[in-house]
Amino acid sequence: MTTQLEFAKAGKITKEMQQAAKSEPVNAKQLRKLIAAGKAVLPANSRHRNLKPIAIGSALRTKVNANIGTSPIKASLKEELKKMQVAVAAGADAIMDLSIGGNIDEIRRAILRRATVPIGTVPIYQAFVGKKLDAVTEDDMFNAIQKHCKDGVDFITVHSGVTRKAIPLVRKRLTGVVSRGGSLLLRWMQCNEKENPLYKNFDYVLEIAKENDVTLSLGDGLRPGCLHDATDRAQLQELRLLGNLAKRAKAKGVQAMIEGPGHVPLNQIEKNMRLQQRLCNNAPFYVLGPIVTDIAPGYDHITSAIGGALAAYYGASFICYVTPSEHLSLPNAQDVRDGVIAARIAGHAADIAKGLKGARHWDDEMSFCRKKLDWQKMFQLAIDKEKAIAYRKRSKIKGKECTMCGEFCAMKGM
Amino acid sequence: MTTQLEFAKAGKITKEMQQAAKSEPVNAKQLRKLIAAGKAVLPANSRHRNLKPIAIGSALRTKVNANIGTSPIKASLKEELKKMQVAVAAGADAIMDLSIGGNIDEIRRAILRRATVPIGTVPIYQAFVGKKLDAVTEDDMFNAIQKHCKDGVDFITVHSGVTRKAIPLVRKRLTGVVSRGGSLLLRWMQCNEKENPLYKNFDYVLEIAKENDVTLSLGDGLRPGCLHDATDRAQLQELRLLGNLAKRAKAKGVQAMIEGPGHVPLNQIEKNMRLQQRLCNNAPFYVLGPIVTDIAPGYDHITSAIGGALAAYYGASFICYVTPSEHLSLPNAQDVRDGVIAARIAGHAADIAKGLKGARHWDDEMSFCRKKLDWQKMFQLAIDKEKAIAYRKRSKIKGKECTMCGEFCAMKGM
Repeated sequence: MTTQLEFAKAGKITKEMQQAAKSEPVNAKQLRKLIAAGKAVLPANSRHRNLKPIAIGSALRTKVNANIGTSPIKASLKEELKKMQVAVAAGADAIMDLSIGGNIDEIRRAILRRATVPIGTVPIYQAFVGKKLDAVTEDDMFNAIQKHCKDGVDFITVHSGVTRKAIPLVRKRLTGVVSRGGSLLLRWMQCNEKENPLYKNFDYVLEIAKENDVTLSLGDGLRPGCLHDATDRAQLQELRLLGNLAKRAKAKGVQAMIEGPGHVPLNQIEKNMRLQQRLCNNAPFYVLGPIVTDIAPGYDHITSAIGGALAAYYGASFICYVTPSEHLSLPNAQDVRDGVIAARIAGHAADIAKGLKGARHWDDEMSFCRKKLDWQKMFQLAIDKEKAIAYRKRSKIKGKECTMCGEFCAMKGM
Repeated sequence: MTTQLEFAKAGKITKEMQQAAKSEPVNAKQLRKLIAAGKAVLPANSRHRNLKPIAIGSALRTKVNANIGTSPIKASLKEELKKMQVAVAAGADAIMDLSIGGNIDEIRRAILRRATVPIGTVPIYQAFVGKKLDAVTEDDMFNAIQKHCKDGVDFITVHSGVTRKAIPLVRKRLTGVVSRGGSLLLRWMQCNEKENPLYKNFDYVLEIAKENDVTLSLGDGLRPGCLHDATDRAQLQELRLLGNLAKRAKAKGVQAMIEGPGHVPLNQIEKNMRLQQRLCNNAPFYVLGPIVTDIAPGYDHITSAIGGALAAYYGASFICYVTPSEHLSLPNAQDVRDGVIAARIAGHAADIAKGLKGARHWDDEMSFCRKKLDWQKMFQLAIDKEKAIAYRKRSKIKGKECTMCGEFCAMKGM
């Protein structure tokens, strides 16, 4: 036995399960059951030293992922390490390194050496870097997957649900394919007149993943890129396929979660979550946002916090943050921080709404301190202590009230 | 006949209705019907020159209000005028001047002279400024209301629903009463052993409001100040009372909307909206946020965008913005801007989700330009053009793609 899923199925509680359960409303025994049922994953590559394991599932605290990584235009190891540090300090539960520029191996390894949170990657990017489409082989892709798994990556995105069937479906879209991996694979498939190797040879993907217990994040290469394309046939056909692949993964003892949209109008979020649960047997749903309007570049941490809160309330377990720089440029450290906090707000709001045991305790403590006008404790409890202090300091006020109402402070008056 | 409601009831379409309908998915005839039914209000004091009238109702585009105004600790006319200008430039549909510091009359009049958007106030604040509770008379309160109406204010908050019945109910709360007006009145009632004059003499309020067609915003003096207190007896008892008062206003030809919370967990928002609709005969609901978690001071524009989007989707018509400085200090111009944009995002996301005619057209245009990588048009369409340009500029990129993916741009590749 190598994977958490296999141990869980066999009724064994691992030390990773024990550690992960500590910060959850369930105990290790209950967590084991969730993992065995495929309703939770515990991404923990045995080669990732320093990892503090966490688990992901809708019965657990909603988790937040921060994407970092270089691009061909902007590639600095130092900057990416800084982003990771900022993201983790801001409370990110996991990091994905999506580097496609600079020395990709070196960057990933440097991140893994330092990371205490689970690290995810999209290995096939590397197979395509610096090569023409017709020069990329199936082996290149599997070798990349192999390498990332051996390096200690805890979860990998594999876009195994993008097949040739999608080609006519995406033609009907306003923004076509917006997933980096999805578009690379589709173009490769068209250029080489072949089926997606990650789909065709999915058993091989499972084999590699199993060896070091790498959790599969079944990528939504066909996720909608705008509200217009949301919940369309291309998206749903892929989701159905991902559900089948998740079942195959589970049968082989490989942990799997499902990636989801993207761009979804508010009124379609519940439906999207219900569909995923049904089509994917309640495998954890890992959503990107979703953003609920396309008109706010510069504010997509907010558009996605709206969608993310609702998605998590209706059952998504894992929110991939969206930063203010989405649709405009590679995020910098400040964007990373803003993105993580916004996604955490969404996740926490959902945990409260779901009635997750203990979730609202934090809020009640804050409210108690507000009533007492106990600023020091409010700062300690704030999701971003420094920001709260900065706003308060700006007032240059000596009394207990704030500059909003002064002597008219209702808290003070009553 | 003096009020839009009276004209509407009589089947007359005013020029204000015609103007307001221009930016709505309904025509003037339909708007007249909504106003006659009490389902929409058109706040337009005949003494407010330069006003470009707008209407508020759940069948209409969701509107956003920005609160400005001095406090006893920070009072600068110049700063407040600047905030108004910033708010309107950012797309606020209405402004409330909540000044309680400096020369309050002068500030209000300066704002009214310049404002093209409807202006709201809370007149009774002024009755309390600089006075001890036992020195404030009922006449002081009505004189303040009278003065604001004569000055041309388009809508006023009157906390007529706070009665002596509330006193035992708010004692059970974690944060008691957090509404400035609500707490002033309750303290006045206890100090002077009297009932709330705005409740007792509500007919007199109606008389004053009617004279210049001032729309009543029936204030929720008992709105919850934290998740713990949300949807409690104090809140609901007041809401029921406000529903009755709205009925009385309608009967007298006075336009009225209802103010709502505040702090509401995500899972209670739909219920709150349905209750308001039922108890208040679908009078427009004017919500403050609501914020969906208490732990994010410095980010309450985000916590309230989540709640506001959902509230508007379920029927709220008017969102009062919350700025990042909420719970910490008086907002500055930048906070005002951030607050307006976040609330507009929430309102627009709700309009799309409600299927409001034409709402998604904006998003589809943006998506079309994204697909073409037409940056100039994307900037023109962005809710905040300058911010989008700044993020793009930061990249120092010459190609059509952005620094996120560079040559791996899916939009470009496909």
